[in-house]
Amino acid sequence: MSTALGNIVVGQSGGPTAVINQSLAGVVLEARALAFGRVLGARNGIQGVLDDRFLDLTDIAPERLEAVARTPGSALGSVRKKPTRAECERALSVFRAHDVHVFFYIGGNDTAETALLLNEVAATDDYDLRVFHVPKTVDNDLCVTDHCPGYPSAARFVALAMLGNTLDNRSLGGVKIDLMMGRHAGWLTAASALARIEEGDGPHLIYLPERVFSVEQFQQDVVRTVDEHGRCVVALSEGVHDADGRLVLESEERDSHGNVQLSGSGALGDFLAARVKEALGATPGGKQPRVRADTYGYLQRSFLGVVSEIDVHEARQVGHEAVRAAATEAHGSGSVVIRRAGGPGDYHAEFAVVELERLARVTRPMEEAFLRGDHDVSPAFLDYLRPLVGELPPVARLDG
Amino acid sequence: MSTALGNIVVGQSGGPTAVINQSLAGVVLEARALAFGRVLGARNGIQGVLDDRFLDLTDIAPERLEAVARTPGSALGSVRKKPTRAECERALSVFRAHDVHVFFYIGGNDTAETALLLNEVAATDDYDLRVFHVPKTVDNDLCVTDHCPGYPSAARFVALAMLGNTLDNRSLGGVKIDLMMGRHAGWLTAASALARIEEGDGPHLIYLPERVFSVEQFQQDVVRTVDEHGRCVVALSEGVHDADGRLVLESEERDSHGNVQLSGSGALGDFLAARVKEALGATPGGKQPRVRADTYGYLQRSFLGVVSEIDVHEARQVGHEAVRAAATEAHGSGSVVIRRAGGPGDYHAEFAVVELERLARVTRPMEEAFLRGDHDVSPAFLDYLRPLVGELPPVARLDG
Repeated sequence: MSTALGNIVVGQSGGPTAVINQSLAGVVLEARALAFGRVLGARNGIQGVLDDRFLDLTDIAPERLEAVARTPGSALGSVRKKPTRAECERALSVFRAHDVHVFFYIGGNDTAETALLLNEVAATDDYDLRVFHVPKTVDNDLCVTDHCPGYPSAARFVALAMLGNTLDNRSLGGVKIDLMMGRHAGWLTAASALARIEEGDGPHLIYLPERVFSVEQFQQDVVRTVDEHGRCVVALSEGVHDADGRLVLESEERDSHGNVQLSGSGALGDFLAARVKEALGATPGGKQPRVRADTYGYLQRSFLGVVSEIDVHEARQVGHEAVRAAATEAHGSGSVVIRRAGGPGDYHAEFAVVELERLARVTRPMEEAFLRGDHDVSPAFLDYLRPLVGELPPVARLDG
Repeated sequence: MSTALGNIVVGQSGGPTAVINQSLAGVVLEARALAFGRVLGARNGIQGVLDDRFLDLTDIAPERLEAVARTPGSALGSVRKKPTRAECERALSVFRAHDVHVFFYIGGNDTAETALLLNEVAATDDYDLRVFHVPKTVDNDLCVTDHCPGYPSAARFVALAMLGNTLDNRSLGGVKIDLMMGRHAGWLTAASALARIEEGDGPHLIYLPERVFSVEQFQQDVVRTVDEHGRCVVALSEGVHDADGRLVLESEERDSHGNVQLSGSGALGDFLAARVKEALGATPGGKQPRVRADTYGYLQRSFLGVVSEIDVHEARQVGHEAVRAAATEAHGSGSVVIRRAGGPGDYHAEFAVVELERLARVTRPMEEAFLRGDHDVSPAFLDYLRPLVGELPPVARLDG
């Protein structure tokens, strides 16, 4: 094996996705195809670099790597860590000891920031290091790129869950509130709109962090929907907040120990269900409908067997592209982005490498053209989303 | 069409499942194949009978019926209702008006009870009615039958969710508590054990309503598991209770309005996560791990696209069998049960009809041979479960 391009390290960081190991496989296979030397997998991302904990992937059997690629979760282990300047220097000394001059870091915008920090410290310390950020996040909130690997599969999970949920709600009625991930952007919650097939289908109300959330307005919206449809299905992002940016439970409720409850648990759903019961109780006449809340939680990012085929392909491809960029002199360091080519019926992706500065630290909310009113998404968003998620299983009704 | 056997009514009751419409299709198709007359679908179960709301399914196109059969949720609408004696008499008068002498009621043990009540009132009133209960419940808690249609698909959902979850937990560590449905029996929670593939895999602790639950013991178990494995994945049934049968939150926590919080929301998971944080905080030294809880909720019974093929087949078959029983004089009324034939590698099902009295009102806990210690299931349970759930997608690790 030629090792003209030196050894590389690859790591994974942040929340896992259903396809994050496709990107790992993409990096490993392309590094072996090109003239790189040893391929070291850092255990738990930058933490593994600091601790000198690596798994040598240079000679891993292709069948094994392919099986890992199809497995959700971060196969190398993950971490949530922003290294200090001293830690960046420690990382460089570990890279130097292993003759590593390229680092591939798979993750979201925090991961891109770590990549940028390492890159900056290497420049200051005059160590020859190139750092490539390989994009991954179910939140879909990276800038520049059309969308993020991991998001199409998580969006597919949300669509299938909401399709089942709205059929369930048709069976027994009542109010159902479903909560999706997304603290800063509503992309994943918005995918619930794929569950609408016929007029009157849920979700009837979709609340996203891109709009100001008011509990009173929410109560009125639900009561109005129950009056109109006899039932109500809500999709709500865990990141909804008031005009001052305060999360609902930050501003309104503490647990029995006096601690502020943040979302990421069932607390927000239960709180909103209680507010709906209050509001419906105040409606004159009629039997109070059942009110329930489900928080999709980690299932969105790690459920086994629900993937978008486009996502599988693209997650692999961003790994390849990062390695190809590292094999040329065209880019010092950078992040791989996806550019959409073709229309809704003719989707395909192109790849490019952009400066790390353009993605690090920043999040991308849904654009105005993808929203409709205060609690819905636009047809343009569905055109954007459908090719990513792929075809959904058909459903049929007796009274449709 | 010969109508020698008269008209029939079919209804659905209780919580929906992923395959409940297979049973509906089974009833409709077999009733048309045999010498029955009109096939009326009651909207929202017994409520639709009382309100004289029916959908005539006699001439529904087979393709449409097949598409409905593959759709989760109760296509006719469902209800949770135990009719009074007066309502039973009202139901009989509606049946009489439509010349209906057989009623098929798809549901769980409450549904079987309604079937029994109707049967008893018809006998007293000397109205010629035969009532067949067609089994359905994700809880798997019907007596006599080996297992219940709906359970294998829901168990498959739980296994896939837990497989992804335990891989997620390997990536980032910490304590993860996942809650499954099952107020009186642990069948669905127990299915999480299918996620164990290698030594040390989660779920590390499985709590079921068949055992007495103590919060203090739970805290100790989690702390011990974290000490041993560096992380801990818990599967816990929403129905766990203390020695007096009190649910955890019934006995311990009220919400901020002073109401007792019951399970079926995220409250139990959040409560237990808080208790784990307390317990780990008391452990000397070390950084406190992340503690999170997910409640699988309604996704277990209605997620689109996750079904067990055996379940699809058997749910259809119990509908057929009920109609065949109604076409003979061998049974007055009854419930269809599944009997297991063959060993673990050679599973097949046989069907029989038993008296309604044997299933109505009663629930079936997991048997002692399926449990191991205080927080685990036995290999015998996994032998019971595996053929029902079917093969799961393979997963692979770098360090396995």
